[in-house]
Order: sequence, then C-alpha cells, then structure tokens
Amino acid sequence: MRFEQWFHGTDVMYHAVDRVIAEGKTPWQHYLFFEHPVFGVTIAIDGDMQSCQADEGIYHEALVHPALFFHPNPKNVLIMGGGEGATAREILRHSGVERCVMVDIDGAFVEACRKYAPTWSEGAFDDPRLVLKIMDINDYFDEAQIPFDVVIGDLVDVADWSSPVAGLYSETFYDRLKKLLAPDAVVATQAGALDLNEAINHRKVRRSLAASFEHVASYGVVVPSFGGMWSYVVASDVPLDVEEMAKRAETSAVMLPAIGAENLAALFALPRRIARSLEK
Amino acid sequence: MRFEQWFHGTDVMYHAVDRVIAEGKTPWQHYLFFEHPVFGVTIAIDGDMQSCQADEGIYHEALVHPALFFHPNPKNVLIMGGGEGATAREILRHSGVERCVMVDIDGAFVEACRKYAPTWSEGAFDDPRLVLKIMDINDYFDEAQIPFDVVIGDLVDVADWSSPVAGLYSETFYDRLKKLLAPDAVVATQAGALDLNEAINHRKVRRSLAASFEHVASYGVVVPSFGGMWSYVVASDVPLDVEEMAKRAETSAVMLPAIGAENLAALFALPRRIARSLEK
Amino acid sequence: MRFEQWFHGTDVMYHAVDRVIAEGKTPWQHYLFFEHPVFGVTIAIDGDMQSCQADEGIYHEALVHPALFFHPNPKNVLIMGGGEGATAREILRHSGVERCVMVDIDGAFVEACRKYAPTWSEGAFDDPRLVLKIMDINDYFDEAQIPFDVVIGDLVDVADWSSPVAGLYSETFYDRLKKLLAPDAVVATQAGALDLNEAINHRKVRRSLAASFEHVASYGVVVPSFGGMWSYVVASDVPLDVEEMAKRAETSAVMLPAIGAENLAALFALPRRIARSLEK
Amino acid sequence: MRFEQWFHGTDVMYHAVDRVIAEGKTPWQHYLFFEHPVFGVTIAIDGDMQSCQADEGIYHEALVHPALFFHPNPKNVLIMGGGEGATAREILRHSGVERCVMVDIDGAFVEACRKYAPTWSEGAFDDPRLVLKIMDINDYFDEAQIPFDVVIGDLVDVADWSSPVAGLYSETFYDRLKKLLAPDAVVATQAGALDLNEAINHRKVRRSLAASFEHVASYGVVVPSFGGMWSYVVASDVPLDVEEMAKRAETSAVMLPAIGAENLAALFALPRRIARSLEK
Repeated sequence: MRFEQWFHGTDVMYHAVDRVIAEGKTPWQHYLFFEHPVFGVTIAIDGDMQSCQADEGIYHEALVHPALFFHPNPKNVLIMGGGEGATAREILRHSGVERCVMVDIDGAFVEACRKYAPTWSEGAFDDPRLVLKIMDINDYFDEAQIPFDVVIGDLVDVADWSSPVAGLYSETFYDRLKKLLAPDAVVATQAGALDLNEAINHRKVRRSLAASFEHVASYGVVVPSFGGMWSYVVASDVPLDVEEMAKRAETSAVMLPAIGAENLAALFALPRRIARSLEK
Repeated sequence: MRFEQWFHGTDVMYHAVDRVIAEGKTPWQHYLFFEHPVFGVTIAIDGDMQSCQADEGIYHEALVHPALFFHPNPKNVLIMGGGEGATAREILRHSGVERCVMVDIDGAFVEACRKYAPTWSEGAFDDPRLVLKIMDINDYFDEAQIPFDVVIGDLVDVADWSSPVAGLYSETFYDRLKKLLAPDAVVATQAGALDLNEAINHRKVRRSLAASFEHVASYGVVVPSFGGMWSYVVASDVPLDVEEMAKRAETSAVMLPAIGAENLAALFALPRRIARSLEK
Repeated sequence: MRFEQWFHGTDVMYHAVDRVIAEGKTPWQHYLFFEHPVFGVTIAIDGDMQSCQADEGIYHEALVHPALFFHPNPKNVLIMGGGEGATAREILRHSGVERCVMVDIDGAFVEACRKYAPTWSEGAFDDPRLVLKIMDINDYFDEAQIPFDVVIGDLVDVADWSSPVAGLYSETFYDRLKKLLAPDAVVATQAGALDLNEAINHRKVRRSLAASFEHVASYGVVVPSFGGMWSYVVASDVPLDVEEMAKRAETSAVMLPAIGAENLAALFALPRRIARSLEK
Repeated sequence: MRFEQWFHGTDVMYHAVDRVIAEGKTPWQHYLFFEHPVFGVTIAIDGDMQSCQADEGIYHEALVHPALFFHPNPKNVLIMGGGEGATAREILRHSGVERCVMVDIDGAFVEACRKYAPTWSEGAFDDPRLVLKIMDINDYFDEAQIPFDVVIGDLVDVADWSSPVAGLYSETFYDRLKKLLAPDAVVATQAGALDLNEAINHRKVRRSLAASFEHVASYGVVVPSFGGMWSYVVASDVPLDVEEMAKRAETSAVMLPAIGAENLAALFALPRRIARSLEK
C-alpha cells in the first residue's frame, strides 16, 4: 500500500505504507494513521500528510518556541487546533506557562491521536495546566476571558481558499482573536508549505495577520517528511526582535531536542529566492 | 510523461515532464534535459535529478560561496566536475579570483549543458579566467602546478559505495588533492541529500575529509526541487570561522541573488535532529 | 522516464520508457513514440497509448478482418483515420481488394509513423491500390464517388463527448457516411476500451450505428498493452452471420498471424458480465 | 491510499483505495481487503491482487466449469486452495456434485474471507456437500480415500520459482495427486497471468501436468481488474473435447452469470500471438 501526496498540483509522491494503524471518519475530517519505514507513525488528515513521528518535533518546536521566546514572560497560552497534542507538549515545556487552553473542534480525532500516536502528546493531556476544550474556536472567542500572552495557531492547512476553512486565516478571524489578547501578546501560526510556487497560503495568512498586528515576520524550517520546508508567521504589536528571542532561547532551561535553541534564529534566515515568494 | 525519482529506497515521486528537451548517452553517463512546469529546465544524470532552473542558484551559491568567504583572499580556484557551468559562474562572481580551473571528465555533457541549459553557465565558459580541462580529475592531479586557494567539489553523487565513483570521495583522493593546495586552502564539496536517514553519503565524505584536514564543518540548504535539503562539507587546516565568513560575505560586492549574503551563516545552523545524523 | 496512463479516472499506470524516440506537435495532435521494454515501439497521441509494436497486430486484425469477411467480396474499402498505416496493411492482405482509400487529417503524423514506426505500415503506403488523402473525413464525404463495400473506422477515441471529436461517432456522421456505401456494405469501427465501467464510448458508437444500419454487433479482443480488452462495433443492412464470416476467414488465403483466422468467431463471444455493459 | 501492483517487473499500477476493510497476517500470508471505486471489495494476498467483487465471477467460472463440463458426470470434486470460497460456490452450482472437499492451509484467511468478502462464498460453506479441511494439501494426499472425478487447483500464484510454493505446481505434486483420481478424472488449475511475456507460470504448469496426463489444454479469460487475461490449464487422460464440453454447458441447468455457458468454448480460442507464448 502507498500513501499518495501531490505537490504543486503537478508532481505526485507515493509514500510506502508498512501498515495501516487506524483509519476513520469524524464529523469533521477523515484520518489515517500509518507506519512508514523511515518516518515511523504518520498521521494524515483528509488525504494530506500531517505529521510524522520522526520529524514532528522539528515542525512543532518551530511552531511554538519562537512565539514563546519573543514574549518576555508568557503565562497564559492559547492553542487553536493542535489535535495531536504535540503543540501542547512543547508549550508545557516552559515552566513559566501557568495555563494552556487548547481548543480543537474534533474530539474524536484528539482521542484517536492519544490512542494511536501517544508520543505526540507525551502526557501533555494529563498536565494540570492544560485545559482542553472540544469546540469550534469561533465559539470559544465568545467565552474566553483571561487575556492570552501567546496564541499558537495549529489549524488545518487550507486546500481551497473558497472553503469555510479559509475563514480560520481571515482578517475577521484575527480581528476577533485580538480581543482576547494582552497588549504585548505574540501570535504564531503555521502558514503552509514553502515551495517555489506554493507560498499562496503563506502570503494570505501573512496579509491577514498584518491587518491586525503592527509587526509580522515569516520563517520556516525543513520538515523532511513534508518534502521540503514548512512556513510560519509570527505577529505582535510589539517589535519582533529575533536576536533577543534567540538569546532568551539559548539561556532558557527549555530543551529543544529536535531543532536546538541555538538554531532558532536561523529559521528566520530563509534563502532569498524562497523568502521573495512570501512577500509578493 | 513523468520523471521518476526514488527517495530512501521506499518512496517514489513522479515529476511532471512538460517536454523532453534532449536525451543522450556519453561514454560516462546518460543525460536528460526536460521542462518541468514549476522547476523549469531540469537536468537529470543517470536517472537522478541533478539541477533545476528555478533553484539551481540556491544549490550552487551554497556550494561555492562559504568556501570562498572562509578564505581571506582566494585567487586560484579548482572545480572538480561542475559540468553544467553554474559552479564556475558563481566562482567568477568574485573579482579577486584570477584563475579558475574546471576539470570535468565528460566533454559531451558539458557541451549539452551549454546548448540546452545556457542559464547555468551564463557566459562563464567565455570568461578568460576560466580554464576548462576535459579529463579525469585523477589524471589532473598529476599535472596541476599552481597551488590552489579554494577547491570546489561538484562531482556526481555516489549511488553505490562499491562503485568506482566512490573513489572520488575517498581518503586517498583527498590526500592526493591536498598536494595541490596552498597551506590555508579551503575545500568544499557537495555531500548528498540530507534526509532523516540518507546522510550516509554525508558521513562518508566528512570522514574522508577529516582524515586529511584539521577542520571540517557540515552545512546544508533547502533545494525545493530536490524535495528537501542538500548537504555540503567544507574543510581546511585553518579554523573555519562562520561568523568571519558571514561578515566577509555581507561586506563583499558579490551578489548572492538566490540565498542572500546575509543568510550564509544560517546554512550552518541545521536542526539538531538532522545535524545529529551527519556526525554518527 | 515513465509514461502515465489513467484507467477509469481512478487508477494510474506508469509504463517504463526505455527511450524517447520522437515527440512532436502537429496542428491536430501531440504525438510521442517511445521504446517500452516489453511492448517495443509504442505510439501515444495526446497522452493516451495508441498502439504498441508487440500487439498492434491483435488490435488491427480485429478491427479489419471481421468486416472484410462479413462481406462476400469486398473490392472498394475506405479507411477513416488509420494514420499509422497498419489498418491499410491488414486490408491490403486481401488480394480481392482493388482500391483502398485512406483519409487521415494529419499528414505530419502519418509521416512520423512512416519514419518512426515503419513496421505498422510494412510497405502499405507503397501499394498501388492505396490512395492516401490528407484531409478532414467530413470534407471527403462531399467528394467521394465510388460506392464502398467496406469502411473501417480507425479514428481517435473520444475522451470528452462534448468535444468536436465526438462528431466522428455521431448519428449525423454515419448518416452522411451511408451515402457513400454499396447496399450490402459493412462498416466496422473501434469503439473504446472494454472495461467494467468504461463502455460509455462503446454504447454511444453502437447507438449511432444502430440508427443508420439494420444490424449491429459488438465484439472485442484482448490487447495486453492496453491493460485489457478493446471493443469494436460492426454494422450493415445485411445480416451479420458470424459463422459464415468465420468460415470465409478459415478458408481464405489471408494470413492473420496475430489472432488466427480460426479465432475470429470467438471475438464475438464476450463474457456476459462485460457484454451486458455494452448494451445498457 | 493506493494499492501498488507491478506488471512484468517494468510497469506499475496504483489502484485507488477508497477504504481499507481489513488487513492481517496469518502464519501463511499477509492479507488485505479494500474497497475499490470500480472493482468493489478487493482481496490482495502478499501484495498481489487476488480477486475483486466486480469480476471474480469471471475468474471463478472460467476456473471451475470447463473442467466440470469436460467430465460427463462429476460427483466427487476436490478443491486445492480456494480460500475465498468462490470456487466452492461455483462447483456446488452443479446439482450432480455429491461431495466437494476443499483443502486450504490457511484457516485464518478462510475466516477473514467469510467475514469481509461474504459474496465470494455466498453460503457455500454452509452447503452440506462441502467438506472443509484446513491442512496442507500435501498432507491431505496421504489421507484422501474417495477417487475424485474433478480437481480444481486454486492455489496461490508462484512469484518465485525457487520458493516452496513452486512445489504446488511441480511434476511430483501432480504425480501424487493422480493417485487420488478416477481414471476419467479432469484436473484444472489457474496458471498465471497471460501477458505478452508473462506466460512463464503457464508454461511451467502446463509442462508439469503434461508429464502426468495424456491430454492438456490451455485457455484464458479476460479479468478486467487484473489488467488483462488470466490463464488456466486443464488436463485429463481422456481426450478434452471442447465442442462436447460446450454442448454440455449449454444444455445444463447450471447458470454462468458472469461468462455465460454459450461463451465457454471461446475461452479456448486465444489470439495466436498470445497462445504461442504458452507453448514455448
């Protein structure tokens, strides 16, 4: 068996599937857990590779830690999505974090991840600082009360910008989000594949965030199982000082086993040919 | 039509082929030039993708400029291989370089590249500083006379370590190479794909260089058309100071349109999970 | 390199391509000649496999000989399409045939076939009985004068029934064709792949022919390189007696090296599960 | 997800997988049941497609009925293999059959078929005439007592002729089988794919049977989901009269919904180009 993954609508990769671990449909999405000979346990949602045991650490450390280190003292953190639990795991490595609210719409998928991909959450769901809410993030916006210091967006990537999912990366969405934030809050979100011509998602997300926040920065990291780089955008009303962020990371007690604290700054030094496509 | 590329012996990618530009067999290798919808003109040797118009700049800038900027004042440069002419192109951007000897075994392939992929060499073959020698690099070792300041290894990647090609990355080979070098010379070579389990080539090359030189450093860059990162090793008897190299690059008049001089240092900041595989 | 062929819009086959022989674009179609390790020289038009050296004999014998043997004494034969020349080759094996008019719109493709696939026509283009006309078959309908005894339709298969190509299999088309025919004429045409759900083309062609002729019969033959069976429809105002046809074939001096005269009747004995899909 | 199937070691097909129904490993083989958009439920063993809901009827009717109709009055029938139960289903359609012994080594696979592919056996396992023995067919040879009138070989196809599986098609094997047979017994077995160059299996099986029986005949049928024709060999010490067999089929009350009794004779009329490869 093979798992099919398309790239830029022109190239197709057939990944080896050693074993199907689980497959199912929730009201929100189709999920598949399989064993890949090199990547280990692999999670796919709606036919797109989501995360692999061998390098999800790279993806999640890059998603979480820049935002947390851009902030001087993050205590309250919100995760939008993040069903696998690895985003929570990374946030909770910061002992200064007192409360981490994770809002994911798909309870059945969260359960499946705990069962079939337990190394992603690595106990995060049992941490007393974690508050898991199974609900639509849009509904959560109405009930949230504590202002958040950091928000991490780990929502599904947009395959079709005319679908409802696109709303999760719109200006309106970030506008509503902003009402829950402390003034010096930092927001980071995944922003799609970073390919020679696939930065559409990144540019849309960046533009939406730029409408609500004074400062935005793009960065990326190589995720081998994704066949290239993945991108992120971080945003804040406070200037985003990469050097300061890196210094905090290097002097922190937080371990970044997959990327290494000393390499966080380099995520912001993208080759120009690639960076250029992000700003178009 | 599609071009088939295997990854770690388990996954297979079928790249779109808009048009076959040229296909041929020389005494040394089979070559194919085709047009890809995203990558543009693409060169494959013996069934492996070699270089694409859209991102060969990233590959070649990463191959050439760190070595040239690690050296304080490179005047004589040797290219081992480099048939497409892009390695020469990058070296000749340095106005301080007085002489660049390029030794490639396959004259027919060099001709094919000039004809079907002229943007790779961009006139480098007409630069009076370039001396092109169509011969086995092993034979050239016997006749070379000027001590070289920098050597760039752009030889074909090793698919099978029991084949003769492996000799081009052996200790004996670098031992012989060393006799042609100035005492402060810097050598850099491509060292294979940088995947979660494909660093075998990198480790072998690094080990061979470490046997002949006091200092070696690994680095990599994302090459989107290769589906991930490509790796390099740089070696010298003089310490390799990345900060100093980066400073020289940033203050130099040499343009690095694909990577950007300001991003050269970041090539050495590989995610630990990946760096670890290089040092095993 | 690989040649990609889709089946029922859900499955995809990647055929090995040992060598690209020729590729080109005429005003009418894109053609590709390549060497396949098992099928030999292979011809593709607009991305669809058309014919392979190893089994085109099966395809063409099945297309031509039933119609010619259903007729008691065919002298004047018309080929609609048939650019490769193999349909002409089969017709001209019948020494009773005095004149064979072949009308193909694409002179450049006919030339390419003569050059790169000469075993298809095997000298047929030099036979004095062959009259080759490079023109639209619709225009030929206006100028044809001799009534034809047999007509063989070897026109391109319809990929999209809303495209102009569909007109070549319409009721209007066969209505016009009928004006060129002798009263006891027999018409046979290729009618698409014969798969579990791909008989749409067959059914449309059969229905169009049934509107103009009193008798129609479906048949098929396995063409290994097509990955299954190919189908045909034969039509006439005279009853189509398979037994009589088979007897003529077996007592004829015409050699059918690929199928064998003794096996022609069996082409009409399709498994019911497949035959059923043709009549829906 | 996709199911990968290779053809003649050079071409590869990726079948659509709508849903994985079940996957498992028995002591004897790996099995996979999946849903294909066109073929319906599909069974694969050790990575090779075995049988599909949409056309297993064609495969199994071709396997079973010629042998049963070559025999004037079959009462005792032996199935070697046949785990899915469809071979038994076809045999039991003959009301004259009094006893059908089915010997399959893999009880877990038989159970899986009953559970996940019940339309294959369609109640055959509950027919009082069926005796199911889960054991090695070689061991059964020692204990069988009633002389059989017909034997149907539905054992796994040989992928590697140096593996133990090859023994199931050897001269020694048929020699031992013959001791269990009535003098006028008829034996039929599947004999591999019938492709332009894949008739190796067929030729080996035919040769082994020809060493033990006076008469052998090859035949085949198109199985669309297999991408072409599948072949069989029938053998007996009594002459195999195809016309007589066909007449019995046509006058019998046994329904052949997939092939049709009137089409059984045509299975023996293979195109010469294909038949030739069987006799080499």
